[in-house]
Amino acid sequence: MSPHSIPPAPAAYRTLDTNGIRSFLAGVPTLAARLGGPAARWRIREVSDGNLNNVFLIDGPAGGVCFKQSLPHVRVDPAWKMPLDRTFYEAAYLREIRPCVGALTTDVLHFDPDLFVLVVESLDRHVVLRRGLMEGGAWPDAARAVGAFVAHGTFRTSLLAAPFEEVTRRLDIFSGNRTLTRITVDLILTDPYRDHPRNHWISPDLDRIAAEIRTDPRVRRRVGAMQARFLTCRQALLHGDLHTGSVMVSADDTRIIDGEFACPGPIGFDCGLFIGNLLLHLFACRDADGQDRAVRDVAQFWTSFHDTFLELWHTATRQDGNGDAYAAALFRDDPSGLLKAQADFMQDVAEDTIAFAAMEIIRRIVGYAHVPDFDTIPDMAARAERQGTALALARDLLAAPGSTTSIAGLIDLARDRARRYP
Amino acid sequence: MSPHSIPPAPAAYRTLDTNGIRSFLAGVPTLAARLGGPAARWRIREVSDGNLNNVFLIDGPAGGVCFKQSLPHVRVDPAWKMPLDRTFYEAAYLREIRPCVGALTTDVLHFDPDLFVLVVESLDRHVVLRRGLMEGGAWPDAARAVGAFVAHGTFRTSLLAAPFEEVTRRLDIFSGNRTLTRITVDLILTDPYRDHPRNHWISPDLDRIAAEIRTDPRVRRRVGAMQARFLTCRQALLHGDLHTGSVMVSADDTRIIDGEFACPGPIGFDCGLFIGNLLLHLFACRDADGQDRAVRDVAQFWTSFHDTFLELWHTATRQDGNGDAYAAALFRDDPSGLLKAQADFMQDVAEDTIAFAAMEIIRRIVGYAHVPDFDTIPDMAARAERQGTALALARDLLAAPGSTTSIAGLIDLARDRARRYP
Ligand SMILES: Nc1ncnc2c1ncn2[C@@H]1O[C@H](COP(=O)(O)OP(=O)(O)OP(=O)(O)O)[C@@H](O)[C@H]1O
Ligand SMILES: Nc1ncnc2c1ncn2[C@@H]1O[C@H](COP(=O)(O)OP(=O)(O)OP(=O)(O)O)[C@@H](O)[C@H]1O
Ligand SMILES: [Mg+2]
Ligand SMILES: [Mg+2]
Repeated sequence: MSPHSIPPAPAAYRTLDTNGIRSFLAGVPTLAARLGGPAARWRIREVSDGNLNNVFLIDGPAGGVCFKQSLPHVRVDPAWKMPLDRTFYEAAYLREIRPCVGALTTDVLHFDPDLFVLVVESLDRHVVLRRGLMEGGAWPDAARAVGAFVAHGTFRTSLLAAPFEEVTRRLDIFSGNRTLTRITVDLILTDPYRDHPRNHWISPDLDRIAAEIRTDPRVRRRVGAMQARFLTCRQALLHGDLHTGSVMVSADDTRIIDGEFACPGPIGFDCGLFIGNLLLHLFACRDADGQDRAVRDVAQFWTSFHDTFLELWHTATRQDGNGDAYAAALFRDDPSGLLKAQADFMQDVAEDTIAFAAMEIIRRIVGYAHVPDFDTIPDMAARAERQGTALALARDLLAAPGSTTSIAGLIDLARDRARRYP
Repeated sequence: MSPHSIPPAPAAYRTLDTNGIRSFLAGVPTLAARLGGPAARWRIREVSDGNLNNVFLIDGPAGGVCFKQSLPHVRVDPAWKMPLDRTFYEAAYLREIRPCVGALTTDVLHFDPDLFVLVVESLDRHVVLRRGLMEGGAWPDAARAVGAFVAHGTFRTSLLAAPFEEVTRRLDIFSGNRTLTRITVDLILTDPYRDHPRNHWISPDLDRIAAEIRTDPRVRRRVGAMQARFLTCRQALLHGDLHTGSVMVSADDTRIIDGEFACPGPIGFDCGLFIGNLLLHLFACRDADGQDRAVRDVAQFWTSFHDTFLELWHTATRQDGNGDAYAAALFRDDPSGLLKAQADFMQDVAEDTIAFAAMEIIRRIVGYAHVPDFDTIPDMAARAERQGTALALARDLLAAPGSTTSIAGLIDLARDRARRYP
């Protein structure tokens, strides 16, 4: 699929089955100790549910771990060959981000560079947020936690927090994450806006709106600009795949997982993917309470992100932070100037967020990788109608960006359009 | 001066004097052949006139070369220690850019990674454009040539021309040019807007306007945003130091030299530095013809850059170019959409250009490294008055960016303000 050649897997690489996993873990003393007891007593369960990697949970008498291994191909499509380095980038991302987001993600317990195995904490009390939402659960703190995660992770890796020497050195490492960035560029930023065999949708119901999106000159122009924005604007280190399937929740805890798409980019990309997926859930929702919760989650996510990010920025400026953008020297004695600069900055992030949210909605309905949220609607005509409404919203957001430039405006619009359901 | 430690010079490094240069060149067969005859007959002249490096021209019976060597410190300030790698980046930049700009720059004849010696074609029929302008010369094609240089160099290294894998791989190399990027960040983007011992100006004449610029909240806000823009917006590979001292001209030839500041960044940075220096010349100009030429040069530079860049973009789209931003797939069948997307794109470049031009004017009058153009005005009060007028223009451009958003508008404003002189 990629125009670039795939490096051969290193000689020592092999895909581990449950026996292989057992002896691998037994061979790493810290992991064996964490699990406890004899290796033969460890229970190993496959939990892979994504497209890309093998994932297993292992329980021992003393504790559990989560084992993730890259395959030399897409897990669900062995003909789609792929280099192995994605778990390397996921491990590198966790190591960068963990010091500033703390328990909002998982600890790296081990990384094996020959087998491309990443071992992290097991979250066996947690469920994937997307599944939890689809089952009608309420996770009142989750969106707020994800907002705080994005704020801390992007602020600390931005030029607001550190000299450019430190920031670019870190971002340049993640520039190397070309394989998964290529997937983002193709599947999110390009394919839905051209004829491509990977695209698919409920046909013929959505044929017309899909064609409208592909051919609307205003959409194309905005999509072109967002392609450039994603690829040229290195505001921070992004998670890169922050949908509701990359969040795990329990009654009192929220964790962000699956940072393998980590790359430099505009902060609004992470915000937009998360909000886009909440809006997809909103349009799939079959009960008014669930809809209300989805709307509230968008608002809480944004408020949490926005307020946390600006509080970090205020603190850095007060403490004479050494970021090279919006340097503290300019704003230390000018609190009202700082507020205005922050408002300008957040306005740009909000506009990026809205556009990327729209593009996420589109690619999740007419592109390669759909979301399962709509599978809860058994009647295909009803499903297509809701999807069509979501697509029309996304199209309008891209076609007339000037008409909705705030997250509050986006929320109003989405709520209005979703009100006709359930 | 830098907060970052300076790596020791490699053991093999030594600064070459004329004898050292002679035997060095004699030891490189291609260079010795280019010079011709016995080494003893080569004439070696030092031409260093910049701040950073040793530069010599060498003539032999058959031809000439230009020899440039990094020093472990700033040439004009041996206490300011600096790593040697700047000639490495200049050589790398020439190698990247030469295939697309052809004879608008010089060929790399040799690079020595131990001595940090770069040898390029000798331009001994040429003079430095800044000097040529100060002496009242007319170089009717120079600005157009510089515009074409920027257009070709930035287009080919942008995401409009190639897949992101190729573009980011190249740009990441130049992210490593931290030493000289730090100089840009400090001297251009930060110091003039804070109290700093490196700043200096004609005092007391310019005390007030310098203080106004440092304290105007609107200027600070815009400067903060331009710091972020320079450091986060990787539109293309920039020359990075494109002032009129980095251009050499003869009656019928223009060459861009001194690419040691090459770095990823927004295209408007190169445009803004060049235009800023033309405007500094305009305000220093003592005759109406010279003023007219300076104004015309700004217009010709911009038109040449703008038209060449868009022509390259049109051609790439027609030929189904494989750039990942504004992907050809979106615009191939939509020429009027492409025109609008291009207009949006150029509007951003123009706004960046105006802001960076203003910041260049400011730092060249109140910052560390001034331009000599004003030295032609012997009366210090008169010199300060012109500089004050240039500073006020720059301040206004930064304080009210919305009031001048086109290069035509910038030209009108500058011409009006300069009209009171000579
Ligand atoms: N630390 C963990 N603890 C418990 N379960 C986990 C953990 N990490 C992942 N899982 C489970 O494994 C599944 C797949 O994990 P993950 O999303 O990281 O894999 P992936 O192959 O990268 O998926 P995708 O195709 O979405 O990128 C998750 O949906 C979740 O159910
Ligand atoms: N290829 C060349 N042919 C002839 N003369 C040259 C050539 N390159 C440079 N020079 C002369 O040497 C001078 C210094 O060169 P250059 O600007 O590259 O040095 P530098 O030390 O990097 O200066 P700066 O401090 O401006 O960065 C130029 O101003 C010019 O007069
Ligand atoms: Mg994943
Ligand atoms: Mg130089």
